[in-house]
Amino acid sequence: MPHPDLHSIRERLREGRGSASGELAAARDAALSPANRHVFLKTRFPQAEAEAARTAASTPLAGLAVSIKDLFDLAGEVTTAGSVALADAAPAQSDALSVARLRAAGGVVIARTNMSEFAFSGVGINPHFGTPANPCDAATPRVPGGSSSGAAVSVATGAAFIGLGSDTGGSIRIPAALCGIVGFKNTARLTPLAGAYPLSWTLDTVCAMTRSVRDTILAHEILAARQVTRNERPLSSYRFAVARTQMQDGLDATVARAFERTLRLLRDAGAQITEIPLAQIQDLGTIQSTGGFSAAESYAWHRHQLERAGDRYDPRVRLRIERGAQMKAWEYLELQQARSAWIAGVHEALAGYDAVLSPTVPMVAPPIAEVAPGAERDAAFFRVNALLLRNTSVVNMLDGCAISLPCHAPGELPVGLMAWHGAMHDDTILNLSLQVERLLSSALPT
Amino acid sequence: MPHPDLHSIRERLREGRGSASGELAAARDAALSPANRHVFLKTRFPQAEAEAARTAASTPLAGLAVSIKDLFDLAGEVTTAGSVALADAAPAQSDALSVARLRAAGGVVIARTNMSEFAFSGVGINPHFGTPANPCDAATPRVPGGSSSGAAVSVATGAAFIGLGSDTGGSIRIPAALCGIVGFKNTARLTPLAGAYPLSWTLDTVCAMTRSVRDTILAHEILAARQVTRNERPLSSYRFAVARTQMQDGLDATVARAFERTLRLLRDAGAQITEIPLAQIQDLGTIQSTGGFSAAESYAWHRHQLERAGDRYDPRVRLRIERGAQMKAWEYLELQQARSAWIAGVHEALAGYDAVLSPTVPMVAPPIAEVAPGAERDAAFFRVNALLLRNTSVVNMLDGCAISLPCHAPGELPVGLMAWHGAMHDDTILNLSLQVERLLSSALPT
Repeated sequence: MPHPDLHSIRERLREGRGSASGELAAARDAALSPANRHVFLKTRFPQAEAEAARTAASTPLAGLAVSIKDLFDLAGEVTTAGSVALADAAPAQSDALSVARLRAAGGVVIARTNMSEFAFSGVGINPHFGTPANPCDAATPRVPGGSSSGAAVSVATGAAFIGLGSDTGGSIRIPAALCGIVGFKNTARLTPLAGAYPLSWTLDTVCAMTRSVRDTILAHEILAARQVTRNERPLSSYRFAVARTQMQDGLDATVARAFERTLRLLRDAGAQITEIPLAQIQDLGTIQSTGGFSAAESYAWHRHQLERAGDRYDPRVRLRIERGAQMKAWEYLELQQARSAWIAGVHEALAGYDAVLSPTVPMVAPPIAEVAPGAERDAAFFRVNALLLRNTSVVNMLDGCAISLPCHAPGELPVGLMAWHGAMHDDTILNLSLQVERLLSSALPT
Repeated sequence: MPHPDLHSIRERLREGRGSASGELAAARDAALSPANRHVFLKTRFPQAEAEAARTAASTPLAGLAVSIKDLFDLAGEVTTAGSVALADAAPAQSDALSVARLRAAGGVVIARTNMSEFAFSGVGINPHFGTPANPCDAATPRVPGGSSSGAAVSVATGAAFIGLGSDTGGSIRIPAALCGIVGFKNTARLTPLAGAYPLSWTLDTVCAMTRSVRDTILAHEILAARQVTRNERPLSSYRFAVARTQMQDGLDATVARAFERTLRLLRDAGAQITEIPLAQIQDLGTIQSTGGFSAAESYAWHRHQLERAGDRYDPRVRLRIERGAQMKAWEYLELQQARSAWIAGVHEALAGYDAVLSPTVPMVAPPIAEVAPGAERDAAFFRVNALLLRNTSVVNMLDGCAISLPCHAPGELPVGLMAWHGAMHDDTILNLSLQVERLLSSALPT
């Protein structure tokens, strides 16, 4: 990692070296640098500096910078969810519960981060506020991934240690993979949705990106108000599955190389890796053929607002929301029931495995120019969007948990390794991620 | 009560007077009497006698008779839910969890009871298996109420001490009121739906009818696998509300007289009774204007079966199920959200009250002849059905709990007093019901 993680800075502060205020000044410098153009919809450095100065180094977050995706309520501010249609909404009465937990743990909120409008795309394009450039490539502006686009860039560039975001189909893991940081989507029920602008209340998960697995564990413990049960099981004790169905289809060369290399390194470290069919993944197309949860639930949520301000929506987002208008109640109910049965089948197929390993996304970040706003690029945008969401969204349908870990070598564009399983396997995923991260950082020094 | 309750018989058995086998013989005699014509779809007395003989008097149900509504699974039997369309379904693999709990507590299952087909009406008419006559009137065959029609008659006639049933819009409380017994609809989440044929999984509640409040408490403790927190608060310590909106509209003379008399007796006993508007009840019409949970969810459940066997459905039930076909997903989702907001409003209005008192149903049991199967009586049927469900279904939408207690005087047709509140007020409702029952049984000796 080019930037130190929260744990290392916190350690430094606890030893009396430096101060939260000094760290905040560094975060502000990073935030105001060109790398963070379009990343923040609103910053609050004066207040943040005052808060950092009075936060004890003994708190879990020690007064260090966190960024907040624009879909979370901050008391007194308007939550705009990356849209211009909400600009005249009433200010929030109180902080979202997740924000309140970060603040109570000593986190200092520096800014609201840009996002795909209403969190409804995995690419990270925002036609209203501009698209943050992925920091991985100074030469070609590439997409950051979405929907938590600004959150990822803020963490990758050193402006924030924790990027609070949400993951409905991959919105934490996709930008983490494309920007080369860690993104963890916990089991949805573990973190509170209160005060988060909804996309799909069935699938929405409040979670975060960080620069290391240990930071991810800390962020999760704060957001979920729980302790992760830690262990030091070696990689040789883990049984991993690799899914033959869909997850490895059409990988681009960089992703294929990084994924194969990672599996080889894991095998060399003694991990058991078994290819399994996991043919259930193929069934998701049929199960969702009448529309998915996001379309139905976002249409129910946006219906009145579309009538009033639909012309101010990103047309690509509007199109996806409006697809939910025609879905029948019985189709929605069948979707719920089919999902339950599907989850049971996948659980059965994964019994005996600690995690499934997959590429988080099948491609490296494409250039923004290829998918930028404009009807002539809509087809390319929707193709890229579907590819980016393809692997990650499986875990949301599973009601499961998943982490994306950087697994690219120096000089490669970022590639994410996704380790995932069903609901409530969070602690196993986090523990094994510590081991995988250690292995990869020694084998692929950055 | 013409028949002793479970507690008194159990006491007798524990004192060594009589035997479970003797009681079962009495139950069988009652079950086979003309009063129980059309009440049972299937009896199992030989097995029940063997089970009663080997059940200890020290068990909570002491080997005494319980009846099971036809929508519950019994291992090895086909669950037909009062329909002929399920006759060739596969036998159940195991008992419904509620049935298993009754059996584990020493209950002996004597029979499957008749019901409104698929539990989808409050009248209790069944065109396939006949309609059990309400035991309250030997001269004029009157409806038993539904959907747990046979369950109510089995308890009222002495064939069973506990009638296991379900309540989605009033299916326990309506027959309890019309047949003059006790019916308690607990907060839905407290009792398990596993193994119960669904009508609406949002509203369905597994619960029971008995001959006394103490029996109801026992049945609830068994079904919910929990202890009710008992107290002996006198009636003078309770604050009751009476809702001005809808609940007292169009009462027939018997119900109006019994309800007024009951309020007077309660006031005389020192209870505080306050009329409140509870205008929220009026909003339910708008909230459910695009269709209710039962229509949408039963259509999703029955869709394929309707294609295959719709011509074997009770046409009245089929009509109600098919109303769910057109509902949109967003309408269903708005219904869910409107319900949540509505519940919050009602909770606020009821803060400070121990319970609301209402007539369970606004009428005494009408003659079967007026609403018997036949298209020429469909309008009358649907009018009666809507009236019977009107008050009770409010509590299902509230996700609340409610009891129906007999409050008629000797010589009157049965009338139910409904005491109700929001979710998880179950213990308060049960405790105050013991007091109300005591008051009424001394004031209105039967």
